[in-house]
Amino acid sequence: MAEHSFQAPKGTRDFYPTDLALRRRIEHAWRSASVDFGFDEIEGPTFEHLELYTAKSGEGIVSELFSFRRAGGENDYALRPEFTPTLARMVAAKAGGLPTPVKWFAIPMMYRAERPQRGRLREFGQWNIDLLGLEGAAVDVEVIGVAILALERLGLTARDVQVRLSHRVVIGRVLAALGVAAEKASDAMTLLDRRDKLDAAEFQKRAEALGLSTEAVQRFDAVARAAQPLAQSFDALAKSIGVEVDAFSALEEIRVAAEHAGILEWCTVDVGIVRGLAYYTGTVFEIHEISGAERAIAGGGRYDGLVELFGGPKMPACGFGMGDVVLANVLSDRGLLPKDPATLLPQPDAFVISAGGDADRFVAPLVRRMRMAGLHARTSYKATRNVGKLLSDANKVRARFAIIIGAEIADGRVALKNLASGEQQWIALDDVVTACARIACAS
Amino acid sequence: MAEHSFQAPKGTRDFYPTDLALRRRIEHAWRSASVDFGFDEIEGPTFEHLELYTAKSGEGIVSELFSFRRAGGENDYALRPEFTPTLARMVAAKAGGLPTPVKWFAIPMMYRAERPQRGRLREFGQWNIDLLGLEGAAVDVEVIGVAILALERLGLTARDVQVRLSHRVVIGRVLAALGVAAEKASDAMTLLDRRDKLDAAEFQKRAEALGLSTEAVQRFDAVARAAQPLAQSFDALAKSIGVEVDAFSALEEIRVAAEHAGILEWCTVDVGIVRGLAYYTGTVFEIHEISGAERAIAGGGRYDGLVELFGGPKMPACGFGMGDVVLANVLSDRGLLPKDPATLLPQPDAFVISAGGDADRFVAPLVRRMRMAGLHARTSYKATRNVGKLLSDANKVRARFAIIIGAEIADGRVALKNLASGEQQWIALDDVVTACARIACAS
Repeated sequence: MAEHSFQAPKGTRDFYPTDLALRRRIEHAWRSASVDFGFDEIEGPTFEHLELYTAKSGEGIVSELFSFRRAGGENDYALRPEFTPTLARMVAAKAGGLPTPVKWFAIPMMYRAERPQRGRLREFGQWNIDLLGLEGAAVDVEVIGVAILALERLGLTARDVQVRLSHRVVIGRVLAALGVAAEKASDAMTLLDRRDKLDAAEFQKRAEALGLSTEAVQRFDAVARAAQPLAQSFDALAKSIGVEVDAFSALEEIRVAAEHAGILEWCTVDVGIVRGLAYYTGTVFEIHEISGAERAIAGGGRYDGLVELFGGPKMPACGFGMGDVVLANVLSDRGLLPKDPATLLPQPDAFVISAGGDADRFVAPLVRRMRMAGLHARTSYKATRNVGKLLSDANKVRARFAIIIGAEIADGRVALKNLASGEQQWIALDDVVTACARIACAS
Repeated sequence: MAEHSFQAPKGTRDFYPTDLALRRRIEHAWRSASVDFGFDEIEGPTFEHLELYTAKSGEGIVSELFSFRRAGGENDYALRPEFTPTLARMVAAKAGGLPTPVKWFAIPMMYRAERPQRGRLREFGQWNIDLLGLEGAAVDVEVIGVAILALERLGLTARDVQVRLSHRVVIGRVLAALGVAAEKASDAMTLLDRRDKLDAAEFQKRAEALGLSTEAVQRFDAVARAAQPLAQSFDALAKSIGVEVDAFSALEEIRVAAEHAGILEWCTVDVGIVRGLAYYTGTVFEIHEISGAERAIAGGGRYDGLVELFGGPKMPACGFGMGDVVLANVLSDRGLLPKDPATLLPQPDAFVISAGGDADRFVAPLVRRMRMAGLHARTSYKATRNVGKLLSDANKVRARFAIIIGAEIADGRVALKNLASGEQQWIALDDVVTACARIACAS
C-alpha cells in the first residue's frame, strides 16, 4: 500500500477538533444570519447527473469537475462544483407549488478538480443564499444584507471588508456610450472581468480589438478601474468616463435601498465587477477584504433567467455564494481568530471527581443524571484519586465546575467548586444537577 | 438534455426546508449527546484515496463504491462508504501526539453504490462515535450510553428500541464448546451473522459443513437465536446451549457496567450478533427497533487492532455508526415525528407590519436592528397595508410577535402583539428590540 493512501487527498482537509470548531463557528454565523433574515435551510445531493452542469456550461466544464460513472452503471455523475444548478432543479421540480418569495439558504460542500492554491481547495464549504420570486433593488440589498450580518457576527467591520457592486444594465449602458457595438458587448464584459489579470498593454490591445478608438480605449480603461463609495454621487464618475449620469440609475436605486437598510458604509461601486458567469442579469457583487490581499470572500447577484433555464417557471432571483476557505484566511489576516483555538471547543459544565473509597460508586450515576439533564459532564479515566491532580485535569478541559465526591457523601453532600472563581460550596447530591443546570442556563 | 438530469440521482435526496429540519433535528440529538458525553467533533474529506478502502477490504469492495479518477490525474478516489478508515488514518497521522483517551464524533455523509431500498440509500448521514486508547467494559458501556442518550432525546424509550449485544470472546468460547474447530471459527461466525437470511434447512446444511454433530448443530442453532435481557443471569442460557456459564464472563462485565451507568433496561444479549466486519475484537452490538421491522439503527463494538492496521500506534478502540435513514423510519413508525413538519422550522421572533403612510420608512431600519440583535425578524413583501391581512401572514409563519407601526409612530410608539395570547401593548419604538430580545431569551 503506497504511502500517499494514508493522507487526505490533495486539496481536501482533515478537520481535527479545533479545525472543525473554527469551521462550525463560521457556519454558525452563516446559519444564524440566514435564519434571522427569514431564510429556510435546504440541501441537495453531493453528486448530480453530469448533464446538470454540461447543459448550462457546455462540455468544457468537465475538466474542472470530479466526474464518474458507477461500475456497470449507465449514468455519469459529478461532485457538485456549485449549488445553483441543484437549487434551480429543486425549484423547477416544485414548479408553481412553492410559496412566493422562496427564501432558501444552504451550506453544502463543493468540489472542483483544480490545482489547489491559497484560498482555493478541491473540497470546500460554501454558504448559498437565494431569494426567488421578487424583483427590485430592496431585494438585492436584503441579499447583500444577510452576507454583511454574518460577517459582522464574525467580527468584521466595513473597515475590514467591502461589498464591491456593479450592475449589468449599467455596464451595458456605459459600454454602449463608449461606442462598443451590441454584438461586442459580451466580449467587452469578458475583458472587464479579466482586467486585473492582464497587463496594461495587453488590456489596451484587446480593448482596441473591440473596435474602440484610442480615446475610447482610455475611457474603457477608466471604467474598468472606476471605484468609489456607493454613498457618493455618480456625477463625477459619469463625467470622467463620458456618459450621462442617468446610465447609473440602477445603482442609484441600490444606493437608496442600502441607505434605508443601514448598510451603505459597507458598499463600494466598482463598475468593472462583471462576475464571469453568463447568467447574471442585474446587480452583481463581490465581497473583498479591503486591501485586496485575498480572493473574493463572496460573489453573487441577480439571475432572473436561471430557473427557467433548468425547466422551471419564469422566476426572478438574486443570491450569492460565500466560501469557507477565503473567509477563514481573512479572519486570520484581521486577527479575528482566537489565539488558543481550544477555546472554540464546547466547555464542559462539570467535571466529576471521586476522592476514592465509597465515593467511587456515585460517579457514574451522577454523570448519567447530568448528561440526561442536557449538561456536558466529564470525569477522569485515571486510576488516581488525588483531588488536586484531578482538579488540574478539570481546569485543563476548561470545565466550569468541579463536583468533588468525598467522605461527606455519607451525609449525602458533595463539594461544588466554581473553577473560574475558586469558590466552593457544599450541596446535597440530589440538588447538584439542578444547581449546575441553573447556572449553565444563566451563562 | 435528457429528462432524468432534472432529478436527483437515484438513491440520493433533495432536502426541502421541512425535510432538512427533520435531518437537523436528528443531527442535533446526535451532536448534543456527543458533546454532553465529552466527545469532540471531527470531519474528513468526502472522498479518499481508493487504496484506503481496498487495503483493508480487498479489491472486492470496489463494486460497492463510487470510485473515480480525475481526467488526467494519477490517483483513484472513492466517495467514503464508511468513516472508520478516515478516523484511523487521522489518528495514525498524529501518532503519539493525541491526548488519551481520544473521544471523537463525526456526522459525515456516506456513499454506497448499492441498489437503493428501504432504509438503505446511496447517500446517507451517519453518526460516528469513537473512544480510543482505553479498554474495559465501562468504556464499551459509555459508548453505548451516548447512543442511548441521543435516542432518548428523540423520544425513544427502552420499550421502542433495544441494544442487542454480544462479545467476540464469548462467541469464540461458545463455538469452541460446541466443537467448532479453531480453523472453522471464522466460517461459523459468518454463518451466525447470516442466520436471519437463511431458511432452517440451509442453516442446518451449512452448520453441518462446519463438522458439527447433529446434536451440536441443534445447539448451534440455539446459540444463533439465543436472546435475553442483559439483566438476566446467564445460567439458564449456558445450560441450554451446553457451555460453562464462565464462557459469558465478558458479557457479565458489561452487565455490571451497564447497571452502574443506568442503561441496563436498554440492553438485550443476542449471542448471534457478530457484525460482518472482520475488525471487531470484543463487544459487538446493534441497536434495533423492538419489533425488528426495520434494519439496524446502529452497529458497532470494540476493534482494538484497527488503528495499527492503518499504520498508527497500537490503540484499543470502541465505537459505532448510526445512520439517519433507518432512524427516521423508526421515529416515523413510533409516531415520534410531528404531524405538521412545518413546526420543525425556526419560529420568527417578530413580524413587522406597517399600517401605511409615514410608518413605511420605519420598517427596514427596525428589521435591521432586530436582526443585528440576533432576533429572527420578518416583514411582508406585499403591497397591501391591510393590518388584518398582514397579521394573518404573521400567524401563518408562526411569528411570536407582530410589531405594528401605525399613526402612533408620530409619538414614537408601536404596538407589540403577542400572537399566541392575542395580548397587545403599546411600547416605545426605541424599546421594542430590547423587549423582544428579553422575551425570546426567556422562552
